[in-house]
Amino acid sequence: MNDHVDPAALTTVLDGRWAELRGRLRDRMAATKLADSYDLDRETHRARVWEQLAELVDTGHPKLGFARAYGGEGDIGGSVVSFQLLGYGDLSLMVKAGVQWGLFGGAVQMLGTARHHEKYVADIISLALPGCFAMTESGHGSDVQHLRTTATYVDGEFVVDTPDDDARKDYIGNAARDGRMAVVFAQLVIGDRSYGVHGFLVPIRDETGRPMPGVRIEDCGPKGGLNGVDNGRLWFSGVRVPREALLNRYGDVSADGEYTSSIESDSRRFFTTLGALVRGRVSVAGSAGSATQRALAIAVRRGESRRQFRRPDAETEVVLLDYLAHQRKLLPALATSYALHFAQEELVAMLHEVHSEAEPDERAQRVLESRAAGIKAVATWHATSAIQMAREACGGAGYLADSLLPGLKADTDVFTTFEGDNTVLLQLVAKGLLTDYRDNFADLSPLATAKLVAEQLMGAVLERLPARSIASPEPRDRAWHRDLFADREEHVLDGLARRLRAAASSEADPFEVFNDAQDHVLRAGRAHIDRLVLEAFTKAIDGCADPAAKALLNQVCDLYALANIEADRAWFLEHGRLSAPLAKKVVAEVNVLCKELRPCARTLVDAFAIPEQYVTTPLT
Amino acid sequence: MNDHVDPAALTTVLDGRWAELRGRLRDRMAATKLADSYDLDRETHRARVWEQLAELVDTGHPKLGFARAYGGEGDIGGSVVSFQLLGYGDLSLMVKAGVQWGLFGGAVQMLGTARHHEKYVADIISLALPGCFAMTESGHGSDVQHLRTTATYVDGEFVVDTPDDDARKDYIGNAARDGRMAVVFAQLVIGDRSYGVHGFLVPIRDETGRPMPGVRIEDCGPKGGLNGVDNGRLWFSGVRVPREALLNRYGDVSADGEYTSSIESDSRRFFTTLGALVRGRVSVAGSAGSATQRALAIAVRRGESRRQFRRPDAETEVVLLDYLAHQRKLLPALATSYALHFAQEELVAMLHEVHSEAEPDERAQRVLESRAAGIKAVATWHATSAIQMAREACGGAGYLADSLLPGLKADTDVFTTFEGDNTVLLQLVAKGLLTDYRDNFADLSPLATAKLVAEQLMGAVLERLPARSIASPEPRDRAWHRDLFADREEHVLDGLARRLRAAASSEADPFEVFNDAQDHVLRAGRAHIDRLVLEAFTKAIDGCADPAAKALLNQVCDLYALANIEADRAWFLEHGRLSAPLAKKVVAEVNVLCKELRPCARTLVDAFAIPEQYVTTPLT
Repeated sequence: MNDHVDPAALTTVLDGRWAELRGRLRDRMAATKLADSYDLDRETHRARVWEQLAELVDTGHPKLGFARAYGGEGDIGGSVVSFQLLGYGDLSLMVKAGVQWGLFGGAVQMLGTARHHEKYVADIISLALPGCFAMTESGHGSDVQHLRTTATYVDGEFVVDTPDDDARKDYIGNAARDGRMAVVFAQLVIGDRSYGVHGFLVPIRDETGRPMPGVRIEDCGPKGGLNGVDNGRLWFSGVRVPREALLNRYGDVSADGEYTSSIESDSRRFFTTLGALVRGRVSVAGSAGSATQRALAIAVRRGESRRQFRRPDAETEVVLLDYLAHQRKLLPALATSYALHFAQEELVAMLHEVHSEAEPDERAQRVLESRAAGIKAVATWHATSAIQMAREACGGAGYLADSLLPGLKADTDVFTTFEGDNTVLLQLVAKGLLTDYRDNFADLSPLATAKLVAEQLMGAVLERLPARSIASPEPRDRAWHRDLFADREEHVLDGLARRLRAAASSEADPFEVFNDAQDHVLRAGRAHIDRLVLEAFTKAIDGCADPAAKALLNQVCDLYALANIEADRAWFLEHGRLSAPLAKKVVAEVNVLCKELRPCARTLVDAFAIPEQYVTTPLT
Repeated sequence: MNDHVDPAALTTVLDGRWAELRGRLRDRMAATKLADSYDLDRETHRARVWEQLAELVDTGHPKLGFARAYGGEGDIGGSVVSFQLLGYGDLSLMVKAGVQWGLFGGAVQMLGTARHHEKYVADIISLALPGCFAMTESGHGSDVQHLRTTATYVDGEFVVDTPDDDARKDYIGNAARDGRMAVVFAQLVIGDRSYGVHGFLVPIRDETGRPMPGVRIEDCGPKGGLNGVDNGRLWFSGVRVPREALLNRYGDVSADGEYTSSIESDSRRFFTTLGALVRGRVSVAGSAGSATQRALAIAVRRGESRRQFRRPDAETEVVLLDYLAHQRKLLPALATSYALHFAQEELVAMLHEVHSEAEPDERAQRVLESRAAGIKAVATWHATSAIQMAREACGGAGYLADSLLPGLKADTDVFTTFEGDNTVLLQLVAKGLLTDYRDNFADLSPLATAKLVAEQLMGAVLERLPARSIASPEPRDRAWHRDLFADREEHVLDGLARRLRAAASSEADPFEVFNDAQDHVLRAGRAHIDRLVLEAFTKAIDGCADPAAKALLNQVCDLYALANIEADRAWFLEHGRLSAPLAKKVVAEVNVLCKELRPCARTLVDAFAIPEQYVTTPLT
């Protein structure tokens, strides 16, 4: 049956809108002689990644996301897709490229104006100007609104200062070895007034590679992974940059020291600034997906060839993937990778549309930010757990570096943290839903959330659908899955809104109220994203023209939906959405689907069309 | 209240029976100048671990587990405890020591006889004879009964051969650099008859470190962690060893080639051999526990000092551990570490009793093996998830190698695989329960399990207690927790037995029957171990003399029990053991306990009494 589906038919569905670009990038990757990096010392690894970065310039990849007027191609979605493809390779290269062209280049493009674009974009694309994105400080990671580096306007210049070690820039990619310039995020100060965080272009090294006067640079040293990236720390002491160094799209200072901005509120301006940088988050989610697909492809291949224990009355030993426990480790994870891939495709398309507008619609931008935050959190947590499972499924062989799995584990581990801590991001999703995206919803300080409680969540007007009750649904009825997902989202959010509203009218400390509900908040964010992911998968299946591929994708979607319901069935039971017999039926059906899909496992991973040299290891 | 408990009072409870030894080992560790190993290249790391191993000899640690007659101290439990303490340090050293004195030395002691003890034990203790434990082959890890290296008796000697690459010895610690001799597990062949797997002492390197004739050695290369251990591969080609090289406790060959054994069945003899090596599994569980405690201690310290986001109407920012979501990440994991510590203590005592007998009771030995397998699986999976959580809770700082968390993650990752794959081990637990330990229950081949089905599980006579139904239990009623845990175990096992029995009387393929129930089998093993863990915790609390410490431990035990019930509440709901309102109450109570225990978090990790230099990092 479905084990005869042509992987190429699935690839067509997976490749979607940017199929042509994906094909080109894959061909290039397939033609590149891959040298594995798992056994390089740190300095050699960094040097190699730097060389590979330079080779990327020739491929045209870096141009994709920049505006045509400055040598780019203006294909925002394509740019993100190209980062996703890089996720199949050495993730240090992906991150280094992301720092140079996504974060550094992206900040110049999105926060700067023509004066910056004309001066820098071409050099950024060509790597003539290697740069850093210096936002995070040792003391402020998630709460970047309160970072403490200052840029004080004095005599026509900005003077950049690091007040103390807590305010040093930390974990900054490209800082320890290669960066020449940094977009430094600092509190813009004029006289005794601060206007909030802005970006400034600050040279950090001269042409010979020596730190600029007043700039101190330190290497962050060895990390859990991504050791081909030169993360470092930066301190500034009275570093003077011209007034034009301010990236002035959302706020500017005139020669005589007058601050002007199209956005009145400092806070709102800051969150608009942050919002403009959403591409990084989308790219991380995409490349996390690629790394996960790669790990699953390796583990499935291994599971199809590795044998252990003899079958009764047979001379052959049983292939690992024939064991239910092994299928349980890999197949629901594989189904989830499919689901997240389609959700990512939808997110990239949304980003492409919103950011291709000269003046993006504000609400659309907020919805985009929320979705990017949520998909990033869900996709990177999935990467952590699925790659871990892939390693365990490959046993001792999966612990050897040449299996590539330890490297994938180590490199992706920080994905749950960088570009926004996942726990913080899911709260952002929930806050968007509660306020119907009307607020500065990216502000997650207890102050802002307490205000939210105090304002009794004016935005959260939820329509309550009549409770659906299906006596004995067919476990593979997609409409039933969608009902369950949608109903869960609605009920969790509605309950949260009621709970906060009730507390707001009491004497309770609003911070305590919000904090006591934090697990509820996280669940609301998660339930929303899960529903979007299922919908994206469903839509992709609807668009599939090949009947055999479509049938197989429907089975994969069944497994995604039912494994999700299974994992969360306590909630469905507690809220009367599943009866006990039906919950047991869901568990049993996941087992049946594992068995049914087992013969298609190889087809499903082959369909990712990962260039062969990236999945060939001693154990595959 | 409980935030004023003296950590030392808790330490007394945690230290238990081997308190004096723990104190001595801790003092020595505290006095050792610790050089962190996270930034060494592989060869330097290996050389350092080798030096540290030699230093351990002077401490008397290696003697502990060997018989007094041969220079040891005959303190089997103390030996395991000493490995547990080593788990606070560089895990490469712990594993290397485990290979030398636990696996290699242990095999000589437990499988050899006086002729081997007299000749080798002193040199093993003193490290004059560094050795390997060469069991696993590339093709056979879990199913060691079918490994394919042969030792053929010819003309008064054994000739050891590796038939092909699939049968090479793989992942062998001490093989790539330091080992001089190996206990090689091979099929003992006389004429055309094989007598099953036996251990043979085979020299692999000469005095100058060159491989012996006929022995080929290869380095396994870089691994996901534990890179201070020199894992390697071994091939044998016509390597001759004298007849006396056979470790002949359970089987011997006379000079004229006659095989004799006190155990008639080849299979039973093999599993008796394996059972004698149970100490390794117990040691792994213990050191996994130490590594987890260390990671949690680092993360709790960080969580108490790191601030993020300002509190409304306050100038100070909120300490991370004051957030419910952060408490949820760390405190249930900490409670589980407490619970597993006490279960480990009980396991060590059991091992000590059983192995201190000259002729251990067979049933007691099987119960010990089962418990060792289960605790090892549960403790190492807990290590993987809790250390991951600790890393995430420390954000970007936790990704820097100097935080020690990436190393702890990387080093412990393989603990779920070595000394028995966890998924296999939990099945072994279930099989022991099903057969009431009467069978060769360590045999997990489909053949043996199918037989089990066919024999209609004669052993599994379960007594069904009258169903308890408590309308509105108090969530912190320990008797209620114990009822739930015991009832779950009983019901899952009973259901499994019925299911297999029903299938056995049908026409179904017994392998398929067992395979279809594999998730049920794993659940049965898990439910059994969870119940034992809760009981061990309860018993330890009963023995605590300090009222304040006792009260605190009771809260920690509440959190362990309720977090366990919460995670599995779908099952309790499906089986009518929890009503929906009660399940919600459990979730709420976990939150309440997190809040209550938050002020005691530091006390709880300080009570582990980990020498300060092992938990001091830039982020603590």
